[in-house]
Amino acid sequence: MILIINCGSSSLKYQLYTPDLAKVLASGIVAKIGEPEGYAEHFVGRRGERRHSETANHHDAFGVMMEALLSPEYGVLECPGAITAIGHRVVHGGAIFFGSVLVDDCVIQALHDCAHFAPLHNPANIVGIEEARRAFPGAPNVAVFDTAFHQTVPPKAHLYALPFELSTAHGIRRYGFHGTSCRYVSQTAAELLNRPIEALSMVVCHLGNGVTLDAIDGGKSVDTTIGFGTFSGVAMGTRAGDFDPAIIFHLVKELGMSLDQVEEICYRKSGLLGLSGLSNDMREICTAAEKGNTRCQLALEVFTYQIRKTIGAYAAAMGGIDALVFTAGIGENSAEIRARICADIGFLGIEIDPRLNAAARGGDPNISAAGARVATLVVPTDEERMIAIDTVALTRPGVAAMQEESPRLAAE
Amino acid sequence: MILIINCGSSSLKYQLYTPDLAKVLASGIVAKIGEPEGYAEHFVGRRGERRHSETANHHDAFGVMMEALLSPEYGVLECPGAITAIGHRVVHGGAIFFGSVLVDDCVIQALHDCAHFAPLHNPANIVGIEEARRAFPGAPNVAVFDTAFHQTVPPKAHLYALPFELSTAHGIRRYGFHGTSCRYVSQTAAELLNRPIEALSMVVCHLGNGVTLDAIDGGKSVDTTIGFGTFSGVAMGTRAGDFDPAIIFHLVKELGMSLDQVEEICYRKSGLLGLSGLSNDMREICTAAEKGNTRCQLALEVFTYQIRKTIGAYAAAMGGIDALVFTAGIGENSAEIRARICADIGFLGIEIDPRLNAAARGGDPNISAAGARVATLVVPTDEERMIAIDTVALTRPGVAAMQEESPRLAAE
Repeated sequence: MILIINCGSSSLKYQLYTPDLAKVLASGIVAKIGEPEGYAEHFVGRRGERRHSETANHHDAFGVMMEALLSPEYGVLECPGAITAIGHRVVHGGAIFFGSVLVDDCVIQALHDCAHFAPLHNPANIVGIEEARRAFPGAPNVAVFDTAFHQTVPPKAHLYALPFELSTAHGIRRYGFHGTSCRYVSQTAAELLNRPIEALSMVVCHLGNGVTLDAIDGGKSVDTTIGFGTFSGVAMGTRAGDFDPAIIFHLVKELGMSLDQVEEICYRKSGLLGLSGLSNDMREICTAAEKGNTRCQLALEVFTYQIRKTIGAYAAAMGGIDALVFTAGIGENSAEIRARICADIGFLGIEIDPRLNAAARGGDPNISAAGARVATLVVPTDEERMIAIDTVALTRPGVAAMQEESPRLAAE
Repeated sequence: MILIINCGSSSLKYQLYTPDLAKVLASGIVAKIGEPEGYAEHFVGRRGERRHSETANHHDAFGVMMEALLSPEYGVLECPGAITAIGHRVVHGGAIFFGSVLVDDCVIQALHDCAHFAPLHNPANIVGIEEARRAFPGAPNVAVFDTAFHQTVPPKAHLYALPFELSTAHGIRRYGFHGTSCRYVSQTAAELLNRPIEALSMVVCHLGNGVTLDAIDGGKSVDTTIGFGTFSGVAMGTRAGDFDPAIIFHLVKELGMSLDQVEEICYRKSGLLGLSGLSNDMREICTAAEKGNTRCQLALEVFTYQIRKTIGAYAAAMGGIDALVFTAGIGENSAEIRARICADIGFLGIEIDPRLNAAARGGDPNISAAGARVATLVVPTDEERMIAIDTVALTRPGVAAMQEESPRLAAE
């Protein structure tokens, strides 16, 4: 069986697949790690439970997952040896990893080397991998990076206009995130359209608590919104998105803030929460906006305006687009946000059908109006499945032999 | 006669107009103020000279200007009393000034209040105004702001997704610059097209050593690239343009730079200079790129790519555009840069005629290809003339009476 592990900054999510990936046998999450209100969920088909589970760290959380997976009550896993391969989400692969890799000591070292780019995430990812190596000796581990898909973004789009030597000496560039989601969703979109991905220019809008817009040309990421850290690009739940960096000088030098305070603001107090003053949850913001809350209306306007502009920018970058794809929490579930974003960009060929848009969840994924030049789709993302696909691909016997010659072999 | 004064951070430029603005009688610059290699230029028609002139500050520079204007050798100004009004370029009007104003003590105080937004420029502008009040007692002074034209940018475009209370309490927002140029050029473009500006959506590309792209809808600025400070937006000669603000945290916390060092990099060591390692001068970069200098080729790619994306973004913001207007040093003079920017955005309706583009300087301002949906124009900017127009408008007797009731009266 194939186990997929996704260690977030304060959670551990997992899915257990059959070897052919036809079925998810079990899934769960250990959440709010390090907090008194920590909890664990475990589901096998429709059976499952959520219970209080205070865990001190990701090591503990891994133990909670193992206990649930091996619990005779659910009976999905008789012994650790039944796991044939483990796939891990890793947030940051720096400029080293341009595809998924089989994990060995050399890869682990490289993950440590990239950790300063994602100090909240990479260390947790490394714990997940090390625990898995201990718990499933002999089973290969695969690392799948959020950044890898964006390694094809060309210099004109990934370089900032800072001193070139500074950028190259210190790895200062656009890395991008949510690459696994964008890759999965773009491939699925091409299949739905029954067209070769090589022939498509598309913009993927991954709109969740984190937000990435991705320009994908011929199946390759050619530009993306998130840059060096993880709060840039479009405004997110609590993250600021792009703003004039000169504001940091002002906050520190004129208002006397510390750099740590400013950083805290950028990651945790900005975005939809900072604009609305109410919530980082788009559902709450939409509800309050409809009831007349002007700050929530403003948050909606800023959010959708930034996305609309980025779609225009990426269309210009690719000389026009064939498809616009919405995914992730907000992108899949909010017909209102999709409608606001697509308003008044008919000149790009984007027009959606209001009824198809309203019924997209579980309905026709293609919500374009009849005759629209651009296909607008709603495609549920599934990062775990993409990781599982890479895990299976990289742990086939022939590939493992290749891996020995090239420890940083890319999955694609 | 009308005198126009433009105090930059280290220069003082001036133009002397006839009262009807039909003719520029004299013009000049006192440059490199505070530097040993300071110089002064003064021209009357084709007659003129450039000579070494070391000035300690803007007070001295004002004296050099007065001497040149009153010099019997040129004979354009017999006595200071012949000046009937003085117009001043002022860089930053904060969120106070949404149009040009007649200067009084209350306005001077407000300029001081805005000075922290533009610490290199506003103090110099204030010196110019105070010297003019002393030198031409009784003649009214008018302040014309680089930021004022952009005060119509709506909240969805001028607010960053930072905490709302922080932004509003401390004036943190997008202010924009080069507004006087964008206003002049957009009005001129509408005249050239013989269409009411109210009916036009256009993007103005002010490409000089400073760069502003401006989305102008119905004559009003609705979005613009420069934000809070003056180095943001698109990459400029030595200014960085937008980059992920998280890079600042990295430079300070991981690489040990001081915030002052980072600020110096953003304003003076980045942009075309930082990318190319050669020059901030576009002509030099184009020449070197043609000879195969890869760093200069990269600088050109980044610069034109960022502009192309912004045109697409602003088209999306306005639901498509009717006109694209190039102005300022690079915009007026570089057919190559215009061609690179307009490549492959035919889907927006933008197509230029290579021959018209090459001949634009002094030729037909409309360089669009036959049948192009969008009119692409090359329009020389003239900020001094725009300031002079406002100065005449605000110093007409009836307007002065209104001004007494409303000291911050806007020119429009």
